Amino acid sequence: MNTSSPAQSLPLSEFSVRLRKLHAYQKRKKLDVLLVATEVNRYYFTGFCASNGLLVLTDEPTFYTDFRYFVAAKEALPFLKVKIIWKAGEESGALAKIGKKWKRVGYEGALSAERFGTWKEAFPSAEFVNVSTAIDDFRNIKSLAEQRCLRAAVRATDAVFAAVRSQLTPGMTEWEVRNLIRRGTDFCGQGEAFDTIVCAGKNAAECHHHPDETCLLENGPVLIDMGVRKDYYCSDMTRSFCLGKATAEYRDIYKIVLEANRKAIQAIRPGRKGCDIDAIARKLIEKAGYGKYFGHGLGHSLGLEIHESVRFSETSLMVLKSGMLMTVEPGIYLPGRFGVRIEDVVLVTRNGCEVLTKTDKQVMA
Amino acid sequence: MNTSSPAQSLPLSEFSVRLRKLHAYQKRKKLDVLLVATEVNRYYFTGFCASNGLLVLTDEPTFYTDFRYFVAAKEALPFLKVKIIWKAGEESGALAKIGKKWKRVGYEGALSAERFGTWKEAFPSAEFVNVSTAIDDFRNIKSLAEQRCLRAAVRATDAVFAAVRSQLTPGMTEWEVRNLIRRGTDFCGQGEAFDTIVCAGKNAAECHHHPDETCLLENGPVLIDMGVRKDYYCSDMTRSFCLGKATAEYRDIYKIVLEANRKAIQAIRPGRKGCDIDAIARKLIEKAGYGKYFGHGLGHSLGLEIHESVRFSETSLMVLKSGMLMTVEPGIYLPGRFGVRIEDVVLVTRNGCEVLTKTDKQVMA
Repeated sequence: MNTSSPAQSLPLSEFSVRLRKLHAYQKRKKLDVLLVATEVNRYYFTGFCASNGLLVLTDEPTFYTDFRYFVAAKEALPFLKVKIIWKAGEESGALAKIGKKWKRVGYEGALSAERFGTWKEAFPSAEFVNVSTAIDDFRNIKSLAEQRCLRAAVRATDAVFAAVRSQLTPGMTEWEVRNLIRRGTDFCGQGEAFDTIVCAGKNAAECHHHPDETCLLENGPVLIDMGVRKDYYCSDMTRSFCLGKATAEYRDIYKIVLEANRKAIQAIRPGRKGCDIDAIARKLIEKAGYGKYFGHGLGHSLGLEIHESVRFSETSLMVLKSGMLMTVEPGIYLPGRFGVRIEDVVLVTRNGCEVLTKTDKQVMA
Repeated sequence: MNTSSPAQSLPLSEFSVRLRKLHAYQKRKKLDVLLVATEVNRYYFTGFCASNGLLVLTDEPTFYTDFRYFVAAKEALPFLKVKIIWKAGEESGALAKIGKKWKRVGYEGALSAERFGTWKEAFPSAEFVNVSTAIDDFRNIKSLAEQRCLRAAVRATDAVFAAVRSQLTPGMTEWEVRNLIRRGTDFCGQGEAFDTIVCAGKNAAECHHHPDETCLLENGPVLIDMGVRKDYYCSDMTRSFCLGKATAEYRDIYKIVLEANRKAIQAIRPGRKGCDIDAIARKLIEKAGYGKYFGHGLGHSLGLEIHESVRFSETSLMVLKSGMLMTVEPGIYLPGRFGVRIEDVVLVTRNGCEVLTKTDKQVMA
């Protein structure tokens, strides 16, 4: 394990390439302007991390931010104009002034309805084009530099899990385990990629249980869903096991879930649809008689955010491409009794996929 | 300091009262339905914490959530119907089906523009009413139970700061200090209320600097902006100081900022406008000749979120009421040199306000 250090951004060139691609898209779509308002997309296209800002993409790309970030933004963004943003409540007038000629305006669907209303007020006769799908398409394909970050985040998750797993004993509470994991994620990265889930006994039948003071029991089932955030990128892994001897029923369920996880992974390759991969795991679990106990999707893409736009689900028509990063996480949850989920992170490659998660999943099989 | 334990929610009665008030508002406004979609407002009105859900407030209030949270929601929400939510991508049809008679629909302004579009599709002839201001009005006035939580969060922040302050020595990096604070916030609560800001030397001239590997220097300026999250509620505090002997100029600036902080606090009482309180601090700093070095608002309300809707700013017309919780945080930032900010949390009372933050601010004066 490396010692914790502040998050490192990718080289500036990575961001200027992204920005150039977005600019080319804007021209192709004949947008007079493309407004990037959400924090995660501002970071994706500029490498500058701030709670306030608006990237105004025209032929003279400008980053607006407030007084609190202005000095840092000027230093961090040599390839952009940086200006002080308008006062709260004055956005409509300010935009109308700088965008007198804007007739086609690109916006993100995640923008708040209230703010979108303000923008429409600024440009009452403009045509607004939702560019979220296009931005998602960029973000879904991870560059080699991003893949290196994501591999490191997954390795860190493996390492924290191993260290914590070796310390688990009956009598510890879920909350204590979660605290150990939090310390591990701070040590190996910059904290948790999401709120760690730790379930003991029947709590594992709730897929997203909040860790409480329930004790881990001798021979009791445990489910841990965790991930390290490292250099802005997320990882995600679930392991299920018993603290001692598992019952025959637990082992049976485990084998079914593991089989679903493996068969789905084997099927992943460019060109396949999200719903097809989901169906492989789902049918296997249904055939075993546990279909109604697997009520969530099979997986999701991840990167700067823990849940990104590609899904393995019954309704997902998204087509897999090389460079996508996905979780594969089938589960069976028996209410009031126990639950099993096994989750790995995989990278879609040119011919199939590579499982990045290395933590053993054979242990209960 | 108490040892860390999982976040405790307020008693169920607190949430059922809030829900009843919201229901009364809905009737007063003749809304056929009020849809609460954001995570924070769902929590505020139900006490149930989940990343997925929709509170559908009609005469038969129903909480929709997915498979992952269904078991826990049924247990946690005895005063609501709980149902499984529709599949992703099918919201428009599902809502149209359950809301055939809805003509006036209350929604939150923070809803995404994309999702709002889906809702409009579901009810093409309905009138949509933005209820965010009404919900903010509820949330802005903290109940006695909330005030107890917030006091505890502020006390925990005082305690963590004291423990960390006593350990600071020249040569430590900002990142090390941030790590100490993170461990303290985990120990005294459930982590940071926001990403801790630690600035050494000239980094303090950036109000929202991200802690890096800059070292704290002998006699060097330090600025720490931090808060503990405890039982879902946030606290927020900034202290500025020198590690050793401060220059005469630093002390002069410090005195001006402290005077601005105090004079603003003295003026806080129900009935005053946000812009009036801001002006008191701003004029004082302007008179001293540093007006252009104080470029942010004087403060903000806080509670479940670190920034809530009430502001002390040049443009804020919000009127203070008893039970509001506000930060008061004037600052002076000299680019390339140093910065000073002093931030306390105050509770607006019937006749004035009570300063909850107890950490000494006299130290540099």
